[in-house]
Amino acid sequence: MKVIVDFTVVPVGAGISLSPYVAEVERILQRAGLHHVLHANGTNVEGEWDDVMAAIRACHEALHAQGVPRIHTDIKLGTRSDRAQSMADKVESVKAKLATS
Amino acid sequence: MKVIVDFTVVPVGAGISLSPYVAEVERILQRAGLHHVLHANGTNVEGEWDDVMAAIRACHEALHAQGVPRIHTDIKLGTRSDRAQSMADKVESVKAKLATS
Amino acid sequence: MKVIVDFTVVPVGAGISLSPYVAEVERILQRAGLHHVLHANGTNVEGEWDDVMAAIRACHEALHAQGVPRIHTDIKLGTRSDRAQSMADKVESVKAKLATS
Amino acid sequence: MKVIVDFTVVPVGAGISLSPYVAEVERILQRAGLHHVLHANGTNVEGEWDDVMAAIRACHEALHAQGVPRIHTDIKLGTRSDRAQSMADKVESVKAKLATS
Repeated sequence: MKVIVDFTVVPVGAGISLSPYVAEVERILQRAGLHHVLHANGTNVEGEWDDVMAAIRACHEALHAQGVPRIHTDIKLGTRSDRAQSMADKVESVKAKLATS
Repeated sequence: MKVIVDFTVVPVGAGISLSPYVAEVERILQRAGLHHVLHANGTNVEGEWDDVMAAIRACHEALHAQGVPRIHTDIKLGTRSDRAQSMADKVESVKAKLATS
Repeated sequence: MKVIVDFTVVPVGAGISLSPYVAEVERILQRAGLHHVLHANGTNVEGEWDDVMAAIRACHEALHAQGVPRIHTDIKLGTRSDRAQSMADKVESVKAKLATS
Repeated sequence: MKVIVDFTVVPVGAGISLSPYVAEVERILQRAGLHHVLHANGTNVEGEWDDVMAAIRACHEALHAQGVPRIHTDIKLGTRSDRAQSMADKVESVKAKLATS
């Protein structure tokens, strides 16, 4: 089952600068070979359900190993059974609507 | 790795009444043997990371099998490496602070 | 416009114990006169859109005033134009489905 | 108080194609004069708290007026009292960490 995910990892009890941890998340997604796109409030990623979820778990494990005592993560995810859809498709679909309005 | 999760399954393209689908989610969590608590905007569940994520995946599979073409799910989750904490602990901790203020 | 909300306030850069801040959130909702229910991963609240949003803003202002430098908050919210629905209605609707299955 | 927000509007009971509604959300943000960036799973927007929240409320009102009976919206938001930070700053900060690792 394919899934499109947006997730945000919020380290708690590890200071106020979170960008080193977000960079680590990006490296983990890169190594996992998952298509991902960083944005201002999280990271979009698409792939097989189990691969994506394993990568998010790996982020928690890596950050705890780096000394983060507590991690809050938000995940928004979507699956469809009617047709295949990529992250790029979703953005293009909205832009097409905007272009013709 | 233990995880505490709150998740909300939003079936799209399956009409306006969502309670039959939320009931199915509850049944899946029950059969999975996971401690879960329904609330007005989702369900709280705690357990091993892989068990909880497998249950959420099973919810998507079951709802698609029932004809829901598109599912949006929100997940908020927390892990800690400093100490064990249950869902009940979290609520009690806040109530204790309120009682002494 | 009535809204039903679940929100979770995550203070960042203010240590690992979050319950004092969650207790402050509860006090603010109480003073605002909004019906709210604490759960393990956040707080459910219902009311007029502007009243609920003003209360969440007040939480951010209060926590920053207490020295929290950075706050991440998740909000899930629902509005309906087809009929009135309370938080209690939502839970009862699912329980009724479970009882008859 | 400045806020950086990611939000996703999920119309329920209005069919399976959501892009016309997301396009309407984009138009509302445009008319509101708020800096916003569409991504595959939502829209990032930054501005004054009340302006951003008024725009999200306007999205709910517009979609209900177009016949959407039920709307589920996710909001992730962040405020800081320690320093000013823009959405572009957040992305650049992570990219700088990646470039030097």
